[in-house]
Amino acid sequence: MAVNSPLPIAANLKPVPGLQLGHAEAGIKKPGRKDLLLVTLASGASVAGVFTTNRFCAAPVQLSKAHLDHANIAGKPIKALVINTGNANAGTGEAGLANANATCVALAKLLHCEAEQILPFSTGVILEPLPVDRLVAGLPQAISHLKEDNWLNAAESIMTTDTQPKAASRTVTIAGKRVTLTGISKGAGMIKPNMATMLGFVACDASVPQALLERMVKQAADASFNCITIDGDTSTNDSFMLIATGAGELEITDAASADYAALAAVVTELSQELAQMIVRDGEGATKFITIQVEQGRDVEECRKIAYAIGHSPLVKTAFFASDPNLGRILAAIGYAGVNDLNVDKLDLYLDDVWVAKQGGRHPDYREEDGQRVMQQSEITVRVVLARGDAAATIWTCDLSHDYVSINADYRS
Amino acid sequence: MAVNSPLPIAANLKPVPGLQLGHAEAGIKKPGRKDLLLVTLASGASVAGVFTTNRFCAAPVQLSKAHLDHANIAGKPIKALVINTGNANAGTGEAGLANANATCVALAKLLHCEAEQILPFSTGVILEPLPVDRLVAGLPQAISHLKEDNWLNAAESIMTTDTQPKAASRTVTIAGKRVTLTGISKGAGMIKPNMATMLGFVACDASVPQALLERMVKQAADASFNCITIDGDTSTNDSFMLIATGAGELEITDAASADYAALAAVVTELSQELAQMIVRDGEGATKFITIQVEQGRDVEECRKIAYAIGHSPLVKTAFFASDPNLGRILAAIGYAGVNDLNVDKLDLYLDDVWVAKQGGRHPDYREEDGQRVMQQSEITVRVVLARGDAAATIWTCDLSHDYVSINADYRS
Repeated sequence: MAVNSPLPIAANLKPVPGLQLGHAEAGIKKPGRKDLLLVTLASGASVAGVFTTNRFCAAPVQLSKAHLDHANIAGKPIKALVINTGNANAGTGEAGLANANATCVALAKLLHCEAEQILPFSTGVILEPLPVDRLVAGLPQAISHLKEDNWLNAAESIMTTDTQPKAASRTVTIAGKRVTLTGISKGAGMIKPNMATMLGFVACDASVPQALLERMVKQAADASFNCITIDGDTSTNDSFMLIATGAGELEITDAASADYAALAAVVTELSQELAQMIVRDGEGATKFITIQVEQGRDVEECRKIAYAIGHSPLVKTAFFASDPNLGRILAAIGYAGVNDLNVDKLDLYLDDVWVAKQGGRHPDYREEDGQRVMQQSEITVRVVLARGDAAATIWTCDLSHDYVSINADYRS
Repeated sequence: MAVNSPLPIAANLKPVPGLQLGHAEAGIKKPGRKDLLLVTLASGASVAGVFTTNRFCAAPVQLSKAHLDHANIAGKPIKALVINTGNANAGTGEAGLANANATCVALAKLLHCEAEQILPFSTGVILEPLPVDRLVAGLPQAISHLKEDNWLNAAESIMTTDTQPKAASRTVTIAGKRVTLTGISKGAGMIKPNMATMLGFVACDASVPQALLERMVKQAADASFNCITIDGDTSTNDSFMLIATGAGELEITDAASADYAALAAVVTELSQELAQMIVRDGEGATKFITIQVEQGRDVEECRKIAYAIGHSPLVKTAFFASDPNLGRILAAIGYAGVNDLNVDKLDLYLDDVWVAKQGGRHPDYREEDGQRVMQQSEITVRVVLARGDAAATIWTCDLSHDYVSINADYRS
């Protein structure tokens, strides 16, 4: 059950011209569960992505990076993305790479392209061999389902411990031209993306040159997926891909143009919505917490403090209990690693309630005011450092009994 | 219920000549609970300590540091330590410092010494005003209980969410001289000491000059309290104090001597036992986990990896469930921040079971072998990096439903 369930998924997710989606039940997860997604791109599309910084990055991540590089160098565009759930194909060594490659080879044969024009993605359990035979056997079923209007099935096909599919759409007009954008994401645990999250896909029908698309995907990731955390565990498989099919009206040519800025803004906004959906459906989440750190010397120290608060099991369990045990937030700020922080200047707010002033309890702070805010399902923690102009915001959730249950039972 | 409960506390904790302990029920916690401890030192004793690095370090920590400095400069030795539970006196600003100082002034009057000769310590809830009147009113009761043979009451008087008191004793002979050492510790949550833990006190009756005692306490802390983590939360109040009463036979004069090395070794061993007791009694703990990282380039990278594993909620819940979902350990190693780590050389063992070889699943690894080890209550995770000679060991526990319950209910 996500926070404020159900998640606000538009009844009609908008098809993005130039892109088709096909799903399958390949038997990688339990039989009868959608576990395979195929995305095919018409010619003229460009793709850019950001990936996990985990040193144990999964075999499909390694291959997708190599294939994206190859596409740019060899001028052979990406034709398809193939995504399986139920197995992460990570911690699988050489055999894992061979399995990811075999997937691309088999799909390339069916789509009459080269294996290097396929991007593979996997999510699920780490350290288990990928059941590549079942995956490959499921590809024809996915191909038979290919159509433009298939985003909800696509969102459902990439779920693991997610309780709900995550998708969002926008139609905007930029410079008088219509642009359609739709995106999906998944993830509920092992969420502390450090480039992107496992997994996000956003597509639009604008035409965007490769270099600008790469710039845009980083911009969007830094302001969305790179600002969320559920449990502080950075996954081996995080990938966030931005696709521009070029089948629509808008054509972007210049990073300094108002059109680029407008498209980047709506891509970022859509990515934020998808990223926040992941937090709202965080494993066991009952509260959605926004953490704003303001007036820091630089963004990095603001993020350090925000993440220290967002990762503290003590802070997270206090939110779960609706207990205004707010000294735990001060403790987290104090150990965040900002070694010259003068806590005597620091203020803490919980929504509209001024909790701590200049490092100590605000004289007017009343427990019942803290209690009132803590009982809400959406809460903003605001820390004012009073030492600069930088700020950072992250989104996270609480730590509940269900988090422990879900992760104690995940493979059973 | 601690792991392998009850903790092995010696029936007869050995009195340390030159040191008396008195406890009281001061009403800082619920009525009828021991919540105040007084430790008095005979003349000739020396005291050294290490404290939390949390920027929100508590008022009593600030005062204890200042008083230790004063004792060394002014040549007026520390005469007493006073410790309360139920309130951390942290995040309390100027009022908190005034309250900690008032405690010292009141006790100094009763003991006929100066306020600067008292070291105050507090543990409990952060951001709440210290009930200093009740604390001061309880001092005469604590004084009336002062005696050498009172260590078990002392250990009980400093408990917060601890389910069991923590204490250990040793008698050793060094250079033909008898030395008695006894120590106590407390703590079960907000445990990721970064100098020392909240709270540890070790006393011996040797005579150790101040400079050597300061060296010894750092050595012992680094190999004991600085190697444990329960939830990754570094407390505002961590303090570890080493007392040498000088009332016994042994006299240490030289840091290069075999006597110094022998005493430091037994102090370290006793500190490790006390630190491990904290982990065994970690909030909700059902498993005691030793994490050894070997063949790293330096100790720092070994510790980074060990802590990434030890802090991962996914790894900790897998231990709770006895689920050999060991890919989660690889994921934690991968995001630990060792950016040039070549995972293709890395091996992973669970006790005697070889799980991953050169970055992938070991071909002979069988799930049932992992399962067998995961069901034990004491487990060693061993990571071999194959890139150097450095190593590090930390101790931690699992993450269970009870951790969430304890921290969701702590103040209720």
